[in-house]
Amino acid sequence: MTWIHSANPLSKEKLPYADAMEYDYKLLYPRQVVLVTSQSGEKRSIMALAWHCPLSFKPPLIGIAVGKTRFSHSLITEGREFVLSIPTEKMVDKVMLIGSKSGKDVDKFSAFGLNPLKADVVKPPLIKECPINIECRVAAELDAGDHTLFVGEVVATHASATKDKLLFDMGGRNFFGIARE
Amino acid sequence: MTWIHSANPLSKEKLPYADAMEYDYKLLYPRQVVLVTSQSGEKRSIMALAWHCPLSFKPPLIGIAVGKTRFSHSLITEGREFVLSIPTEKMVDKVMLIGSKSGKDVDKFSAFGLNPLKADVVKPPLIKECPINIECRVAAELDAGDHTLFVGEVVATHASATKDKLLFDMGGRNFFGIARE
Repeated sequence: MTWIHSANPLSKEKLPYADAMEYDYKLLYPRQVVLVTSQSGEKRSIMALAWHCPLSFKPPLIGIAVGKTRFSHSLITEGREFVLSIPTEKMVDKVMLIGSKSGKDVDKFSAFGLNPLKADVVKPPLIKECPINIECRVAAELDAGDHTLFVGEVVATHASATKDKLLFDMGGRNFFGIARE
Repeated sequence: MTWIHSANPLSKEKLPYADAMEYDYKLLYPRQVVLVTSQSGEKRSIMALAWHCPLSFKPPLIGIAVGKTRFSHSLITEGREFVLSIPTEKMVDKVMLIGSKSGKDVDKFSAFGLNPLKADVVKPPLIKECPINIECRVAAELDAGDHTLFVGEVVATHASATKDKLLFDMGGRNFFGIARE
């Protein structure tokens, strides 16, 4: 086995990847891509992210790490709620578009042909096209470098028994699908 | 599309899964399985977990959610360091064994034929058999229900250019391999 090592994981020279700035986090890829809806007053948005993590069974907690400069960061900070929506492989083009535009400039639901559904408990909408929607209330948040980890307590779950493939990011937006079962 | 809904995500009746207690968190599966080594004084252990998440590019932060009753939880709480080691598909039997035993009762390195390597910066050892080892110092922790999220700052990274498949858990310890590239 060849060990390639860097005491500074951000140094470029010793690492076998083109973009050493992205080295460390890609070691924890592939990761499932999810969508997150958020709302504050009349403003709403959708973002795509792969930095999510179950945190607790009881109470049911899920963490999402959101970049501090993102429009959704301000909406979740203000609204204290989000919906985690799981897209299928078929939605890959829409997911790419969601990840490429800021919700400051465009309403992503109408722009990308996604249908908002009223949630049961929280204000941000579900996404009708997603087979799974998990409603969360922010129970805690953690300042984590250039991101904030929002800890959501699950307050309602909507899931269809879809057999569609889920969407994974291999790192650098190389997407592929995995069947759940 | 059939919407199956439960206002209480832990209620069994409306959900299309056998074990509704595990319903919510499995919606965020499959997830990559990683190993975590920890040490406090002469005590050391290895655990397997799938609840991990990159949290920040700069500084480079990674979160791991560790059950509060786990032996590794006490070692990380005391030692304030851990190594995140990424196993390959070939190691599936060892990973299953690691997940089935407590480090209170057995030294998992010698018991399961894994070779500890001295880390560069932290006390917990690397695992020689893993192509990727990420040394972390605990920079923060968050009380999250029945788990603690330990936020590790990456202080050194060791990675070989392996093409071996990585190991994923479909939920409920149904493992399968995915090639990185």
